[in-house]
Amino acid sequence: MKVSRVERRVIFAETDAMQVVYYGNYLKYFEVGRAEFFRQFDLPFTHYIEKGLYLAVTDVAVKYHRPARYDDLLLIETRLTHVGRATLNLGYVLYNQDTRQKLVTGTTGHAVLDEKGSVRRFEPDFAERMHALVTPPDSSNRPRSRIHAHTPTGRQ
Amino acid sequence: MKVSRVERRVIFAETDAMQVVYYGNYLKYFEVGRAEFFRQFDLPFTHYIEKGLYLAVTDVAVKYHRPARYDDLLLIETRLTHVGRATLNLGYVLYNQDTRQKLVTGTTGHAVLDEKGSVRRFEPDFAERMHALVTPPDSSNRPRSRIHAHTPTGRQ
Amino acid sequence: MKVSRVERRVIFAETDAMQVVYYGNYLKYFEVGRAEFFRQFDLPFTHYIEKGLYLAVTDVAVKYHRPARYDDLLLIETRLTHVGRATLNLGYVLYNQDTRQKLVTGTTGHAVLDEKGSVRRFEPDFAERMHALVTPPDSSNRPRSRIHAHTPTGRQ
Amino acid sequence: MKVSRVERRVIFAETDAMQVVYYGNYLKYFEVGRAEFFRQFDLPFTHYIEKGLYLAVTDVAVKYHRPARYDDLLLIETRLTHVGRATLNLGYVLYNQDTRQKLVTGTTGHAVLDEKGSVRRFEPDFAERMHALVTPPDSSNRPRSRIHAHTPTGRQ
Repeated sequence: MKVSRVERRVIFAETDAMQVVYYGNYLKYFEVGRAEFFRQFDLPFTHYIEKGLYLAVTDVAVKYHRPARYDDLLLIETRLTHVGRATLNLGYVLYNQDTRQKLVTGTTGHAVLDEKGSVRRFEPDFAERMHALVTPPDSSNRPRSRIHAHTPTGRQ
Repeated sequence: MKVSRVERRVIFAETDAMQVVYYGNYLKYFEVGRAEFFRQFDLPFTHYIEKGLYLAVTDVAVKYHRPARYDDLLLIETRLTHVGRATLNLGYVLYNQDTRQKLVTGTTGHAVLDEKGSVRRFEPDFAERMHALVTPPDSSNRPRSRIHAHTPTGRQ
Repeated sequence: MKVSRVERRVIFAETDAMQVVYYGNYLKYFEVGRAEFFRQFDLPFTHYIEKGLYLAVTDVAVKYHRPARYDDLLLIETRLTHVGRATLNLGYVLYNQDTRQKLVTGTTGHAVLDEKGSVRRFEPDFAERMHALVTPPDSSNRPRSRIHAHTPTGRQ
Repeated sequence: MKVSRVERRVIFAETDAMQVVYYGNYLKYFEVGRAEFFRQFDLPFTHYIEKGLYLAVTDVAVKYHRPARYDDLLLIETRLTHVGRATLNLGYVLYNQDTRQKLVTGTTGHAVLDEKGSVRRFEPDFAERMHALVTPPDSSNRPRSRIHAHTPTGRQ
């Protein structure tokens, strides 16, 4: 499986006066999903950070299907959908873990930058490892059971 | 002019450890721009809220051109790019007020929902007023001078 | 043990340009700890919320001993330190799970309010259950091992 | 007057599902007030930041008197209440600008740290300038009129 899964429970801080999760806070859940993907597939982005490089965000797209609410247990699925020489794209699907409903889908585009903001190519072995993890963006996956996120890395 | 302008200074709360504004926080600046647009053109969304209706977000797209940093003074421009029967689209351009550089562009799609989450059409006179404010999405505008945001409604 | 423990990993969204967790975001970690305390000891605050009541915050105090940083795994300990007729106080200690260092300590005061903002007394059986959970505020506790937060309720 | 005043309008991002401002977000308003105080009285903290120093937060206390709600226009008053060799304390009062009601009061304690986290004394001339700005913590002040925050520096 080339998808990572992690759970996250909605807290008041993430909701707004419309009694749903604030639209900007889904980008935090995407960050949680992204970090989990890198951790689960052992992609050394913390190593990158130590070298002064970082994975900048170049673009984001989000579709809001159904609102998440206070105390909902979310399941965040993350896939790598494209790898370029210095760029990568990730896709996210957020589900309500209890109702199994799809709540939000989204994508983020990234580029590796150094401290001066210049684009840096991935190292060959790192690029190769990532290519093996790519899932075509239109292959729709659904969560099969609650158990999937309960891996040792699934804590957040 | 069918564009609203409002300034906002970046605070530490909005930045992250990469020493730039966190990518999700631009959606807060979009909200500031959106509220300013409605206020400046006297579109009674607060009246809508009092009636139990609200303007849900259906989709978001963002392009990150250059990072905003701590203490930067941002200029947020907002335009209405489309009005449907129960939907509308807004476009945003964020500039660094001092360097005049374009930092981030984005769009948000919205639908009017009632408390049960059902779509509600705009009232005819409201729709008519909004149609008069529409700017085609590809007409690129640039801020002309610092003075534009200094209207009495420009406080945030 | 009358203390709840839950882990939480720091994400970029929670840090600021000083490359530490933003001082206001520890109040989110306190909220995570508080929800975990109520869940672990089966205090039906979600039941309260369904009845239109809620646990307002009346005061907060925080001491920042050492900064938390990106990707740190935090351990959040929560204790109930006082129960009144319509009020309660909670105490929090945040540790770096890997270094065992104490990072932040804090307290929150709460009052049960109804939808009009009037104070409402706890129901007798609920008050009694809470009294059994009170830990005097000055009894310092330290986490003994990493294992404690890995209970089934420890996911966040 | 040794108090700074700045306005800020509450956005959805800052509220929560209880339909009030989330308790942690008042610390963002304190930050806005703090930055305004330093700007208004020309205290060169940005200069400090350029030298690799920063003003860490050592402790916070907040009292929540009345909730702020969506679209409320807040008035944030900030005073310097104590200056030590390497530390300072600030006091904050938040008002609803329209009802004149006091909503939240608070204090923050700070220490000047260098990049290694070591405490650094204030430079003598800087300390002297700050001492002239100190307001005893218990001298209660009230806003006199709406006009006060409308200075050129009052934009946020």
